[in-house]
Amino acid sequence: MRKTTALTATAANQPLAVETIQRRDLRSNDVAIDVTFCGVCHSDLNEIHRPGNKPLVAGHEFVGTVTETGPDVTRFRLGDSVAVGNIVDSCGSCTMCTAGQENYCEQFPTLTYGGTDRIDGSTTQGGFAREYIATEKFVYPLPENLDPAGVAPLMCAGITVWEPLVRWNAGPGMTVGIVGLGGLGHLAVKFAHALGAHVVLFTTSREKASGAKQLGADEVVVSKDPAAMQAQSNRFDLILDTASAPHDLTPYLRALGLDGTLCALGALGSMEFDPLALLIGRKSIASAGSGGIAGTQAMLDFCSRHGITADVEVLPARDVNTALARLELNDVRFRFALDMKEL
Amino acid sequence: MRKTTALTATAANQPLAVETIQRRDLRSNDVAIDVTFCGVCHSDLNEIHRPGNKPLVAGHEFVGTVTETGPDVTRFRLGDSVAVGNIVDSCGSCTMCTAGQENYCEQFPTLTYGGTDRIDGSTTQGGFAREYIATEKFVYPLPENLDPAGVAPLMCAGITVWEPLVRWNAGPGMTVGIVGLGGLGHLAVKFAHALGAHVVLFTTSREKASGAKQLGADEVVVSKDPAAMQAQSNRFDLILDTASAPHDLTPYLRALGLDGTLCALGALGSMEFDPLALLIGRKSIASAGSGGIAGTQAMLDFCSRHGITADVEVLPARDVNTALARLELNDVRFRFALDMKEL
Repeated sequence: MRKTTALTATAANQPLAVETIQRRDLRSNDVAIDVTFCGVCHSDLNEIHRPGNKPLVAGHEFVGTVTETGPDVTRFRLGDSVAVGNIVDSCGSCTMCTAGQENYCEQFPTLTYGGTDRIDGSTTQGGFAREYIATEKFVYPLPENLDPAGVAPLMCAGITVWEPLVRWNAGPGMTVGIVGLGGLGHLAVKFAHALGAHVVLFTTSREKASGAKQLGADEVVVSKDPAAMQAQSNRFDLILDTASAPHDLTPYLRALGLDGTLCALGALGSMEFDPLALLIGRKSIASAGSGGIAGTQAMLDFCSRHGITADVEVLPARDVNTALARLELNDVRFRFALDMKEL
Repeated sequence: MRKTTALTATAANQPLAVETIQRRDLRSNDVAIDVTFCGVCHSDLNEIHRPGNKPLVAGHEFVGTVTETGPDVTRFRLGDSVAVGNIVDSCGSCTMCTAGQENYCEQFPTLTYGGTDRIDGSTTQGGFAREYIATEKFVYPLPENLDPAGVAPLMCAGITVWEPLVRWNAGPGMTVGIVGLGGLGHLAVKFAHALGAHVVLFTTSREKASGAKQLGADEVVVSKDPAAMQAQSNRFDLILDTASAPHDLTPYLRALGLDGTLCALGALGSMEFDPLALLIGRKSIASAGSGGIAGTQAMLDFCSRHGITADVEVLPARDVNTALARLELNDVRFRFALDMKEL
């Protein structure tokens, strides 16, 4: 075993502490990654607050540099810049894996942290650390032309909105709504705009309008304004709902046009809606989570071509507890990235 | 005004009675129809039981013969055999009407009974009657080669399952599940089979298996058998759920494959499901109701080409209360049609 330094949650609702943790020795297909930037996701907050899973090292969207390679590694060399998302292994043989959707592996994918390693059965620990060991299959080359800190959040927030946009054909001639302008939402606006769709942001805060337009939104609708919402009836081909607070989906179902789809990505716990609003117009409610290897690579290629990264506020790793506290208040535009080099 | 004889609900939970009701005089685009057969739908039962809408004449899937035409009628002549479904008018100008989906008219379509006539504001009364007056736009030629009694249920049960099958591309190479083998379900099995899909019927009653296979099902799964249901995981492109009793949708979501759709047509009041079963595999829950003019005509043309009608048990109109009582017990294979000529 090898050792590294990590920001560790030792108990629910305690500040993260700098501790030394173990990493596995490299297997033949593994690469060792010197983590440089790690994004901070809402689900990190949930896992850190949740009792019963400690000690826990969060962090599942990170970038870094390859420092060591196992003997069978073919895709990476020492010094390569790489990125890792929230999945680091899967069964590789089920229908979903075969279809390139390792994120929906029927045997459940191995999560970057809090997962169970498929070989030694250990609990995985995440990217809030100086070093991460991963099998090369789930490691991606970092696009050279993009800011590494801004790439980190693409690996979770980015792929989570990318796959549904592609699945439901966001592009020219389509009207796409994005609900919420956080980590996921701001990337969804950028992606949908770059894909050529007409993009409408739904937000509770009128003051987010100008920022949203800079990101690529063609229109902004204040979702607390009933008249403004009423005016959206039957016009959307696709709405991606990234809002994390529980809310009634009915107004967004009404905003869909014939055969439209509302894809819920944020507040999964509650799915409250009027079934009649689904029936009238033959509409669909869908959900999705994360992405497969092929989709992740396609997203990174797209981002490289279009110069897209997440808008990040970079904080030194030792300020992680500040980042978590501010994220809880939604006080971030639009994602924190921790600079892990300073840990 | 003109008069006709109708099976009338005078109060909730009272037997229907033979009464004389009024029909409007023909408008320029109207046809008068001598009703020959009228199907009995589950929603007739609901409306007859519901307080506050009486007197009510139910019946919204019927066939008959044209006996009179308004001066501007161009599509029908005296003696033509015709069919009428559950919609008899719509605004004609909204996005949904323009798209050929008059059933989702933004101003709400005029229902065949219990609706509000768009011209005189009267409440429409349905096809449990000797005569019906309708604008020709919502009247369809009866395919000559089909049994008229078996066509009647196509006009509601049939179109309700036809449009989602077409919308979600049921055809060769697709695995389509049908939940429930009642009025809707038995037509869904026939349609999906004739469209070329691999058809699997989900039913609570093992004894329905042989009947389902005669209708066109390739496989029958007993939905109360947990092991049988578990074996269906991740294999369906589309499932049409026609079961009218409330039930958990989660097992059917799990049966869907990647990007599959569960379309709920039966038990709309409750939509209980595990959101995680929606997320894993990027699945969709949809709903739909009835159909537009173009879709209804396309269904009738398809039925004519493939010789498809509903399997009906024909009862004389005066036995309507027997039909309703038996329908409540699901004691029918698979739809009642009332012979209105004997009223």
